[in-house]
Amino acid sequence: MKMYTVAIVGATGAVGTQMLACLEEQQFPVGNLKLLASPRSAGKVIETPWGAVTIEAAASEAFDGVDIVLGAADDDVALALYPEAVKRGAVVVDNSHAFRLDPDVPLVVPEINAADALDHKGIIANPNCATIIGLVPTWPLHQLAGVTRMIVSTYQAASGAGVPGMRELEEQIGCMGRGEEMPAPRAFAAQLASNLIPQIGGEKFEGFTSEEMKLQNEGRKIMHLPNLRVNCTCVRVPVLRSHSESITLEFERDITLEQAREALAAAPGVKLVDDLDAQSPHDRWPMPLDTSDQDLIWVGRVRRDISNPDELRGITFWCCGDQIRKGAATNAVQIAKLLVE
Amino acid sequence: MKMYTVAIVGATGAVGTQMLACLEEQQFPVGNLKLLASPRSAGKVIETPWGAVTIEAAASEAFDGVDIVLGAADDDVALALYPEAVKRGAVVVDNSHAFRLDPDVPLVVPEINAADALDHKGIIANPNCATIIGLVPTWPLHQLAGVTRMIVSTYQAASGAGVPGMRELEEQIGCMGRGEEMPAPRAFAAQLASNLIPQIGGEKFEGFTSEEMKLQNEGRKIMHLPNLRVNCTCVRVPVLRSHSESITLEFERDITLEQAREALAAAPGVKLVDDLDAQSPHDRWPMPLDTSDQDLIWVGRVRRDISNPDELRGITFWCCGDQIRKGAATNAVQIAKLLVE
Repeated sequence: MKMYTVAIVGATGAVGTQMLACLEEQQFPVGNLKLLASPRSAGKVIETPWGAVTIEAAASEAFDGVDIVLGAADDDVALALYPEAVKRGAVVVDNSHAFRLDPDVPLVVPEINAADALDHKGIIANPNCATIIGLVPTWPLHQLAGVTRMIVSTYQAASGAGVPGMRELEEQIGCMGRGEEMPAPRAFAAQLASNLIPQIGGEKFEGFTSEEMKLQNEGRKIMHLPNLRVNCTCVRVPVLRSHSESITLEFERDITLEQAREALAAAPGVKLVDDLDAQSPHDRWPMPLDTSDQDLIWVGRVRRDISNPDELRGITFWCCGDQIRKGAATNAVQIAKLLVE
Repeated sequence: MKMYTVAIVGATGAVGTQMLACLEEQQFPVGNLKLLASPRSAGKVIETPWGAVTIEAAASEAFDGVDIVLGAADDDVALALYPEAVKRGAVVVDNSHAFRLDPDVPLVVPEINAADALDHKGIIANPNCATIIGLVPTWPLHQLAGVTRMIVSTYQAASGAGVPGMRELEEQIGCMGRGEEMPAPRAFAAQLASNLIPQIGGEKFEGFTSEEMKLQNEGRKIMHLPNLRVNCTCVRVPVLRSHSESITLEFERDITLEQAREALAAAPGVKLVDDLDAQSPHDRWPMPLDTSDQDLIWVGRVRRDISNPDELRGITFWCCGDQIRKGAATNAVQIAKLLVE
């Protein structure tokens, strides 16, 4: 079996660390591993399933000899470095937003558009986390009946702001629990513990934020639906690492509730957990605590949309998925596996 | 000025305690105050703005001489006792679900249908908390353009489960903060701290829960819109006492974003907080921490619904309101004031 030299950029962050674990879990044929990060982290030694690896500063020459780059760095690093990696012969799977809407860059959720990944020019983009988590269960319903409109309210975890976001929520809960004074927020605009923050990203289009527009703009590209209409409201909730979404879909063809449930039960990447009568709450509906640190999108509360005047054209459901895994690292390693299979 | 004998039933609970405070804040003409509760609390003495009051067990004869009853007890207490109170000449403003859909009982949000309150037969019902919080800002938009459909995802606080719900969330946050083992949940079906629970109430209609159907069924009655269609998903979030809602509306007539904003800014009971560019996060959008322990419904993130194919027929927004106050006690005392004015 051919083995590959793999580099992770942003290897010390929440997503980079998870990418390392996912490479092993998905049995990626890693021959040689390079871990790249900011100069601040360079020289630090990380124990990995492929031996101890010393972190190198992320720079163009670090990509010499690299076959596959997994990018978990910010847009500015991505824009500066990944074209250099491509020049040196690497294929980059990038989790930043920098290239996602570039017409020369495939944007891939393997359960939806795996074939697009093979049509790359060196860079393949990994979609936004809330986009992946919402689209994985939307896709099998779309295949049945043709989705035309999505109305989505998100419940997004602290991990979407990386390790600093998770630490800040834990610190705030710690202060509340110990009755200590709350420090001023840094990762978020306001206190997140026992609160909700209804803005993620900056303003992008007619009062919708950048995060809210991603579901429409990335969703159109991933599902090859240029006319898909999406109304998304993104809200940060005091949860550590699973995103949840309340989704209402409209279709161009009829779909029954039974058809929707069957399609979801059979869909790759989806776990249907939908039984209000179940003995255990963990079998009734998806909850973020139950879906953390695993790879599937759990779907429940599947119902006919009783507000849709056309009673066979609307489905509404609730889903949860781990933001760091399927929302980022797992999906990126799945894309990398498409390249080597 | 005529003074009234007022009784609060369920006086020791979260809503009953708040009703007492609201009577003073709204300068209700209380001549004599009776506090009723379960036999367990009887004999306890409560200090009130009208002197020390000894709690009596809630029973039919306790209503002798009472003019106005504020009900903050459960459905079974309401069904057993309030017809007895009416027989004795009292008017009951009931916060339970028992009489809300009874055609002989007005269901009132004073900002919307104050006139209905005067057409009572002894009992007036106070709506569900999430219903009040969602309808107060929906009403001025309906008056402009005629609302036909609501798609709502809620973010509901622990206080919706009363004092036991709030104590349980605080206890769980305390355990997390101190690194102690989490006790088994009692008030909620699962751990709420750092989690979300996507079911409130039992199953009611085609997979929708009782809580989810209230917004449609109570909304139709309050707004006099028997054909209103509502798709609601109710989710419990780890927040102490303000409910939040992400609401998308469809209208039968055109409405511009500017008209919607103007109507919300001028609407009674509403505070428009909608400026993504504001210096302080507290001026950007409503957050549950900011809206706790006050009486207004704060509305923000007001946008055109870009998923609506008819671009002048859809508005989407975010709102927060205190569940114990405007969601329950404040609204009940407002109704009582309509009766005496």
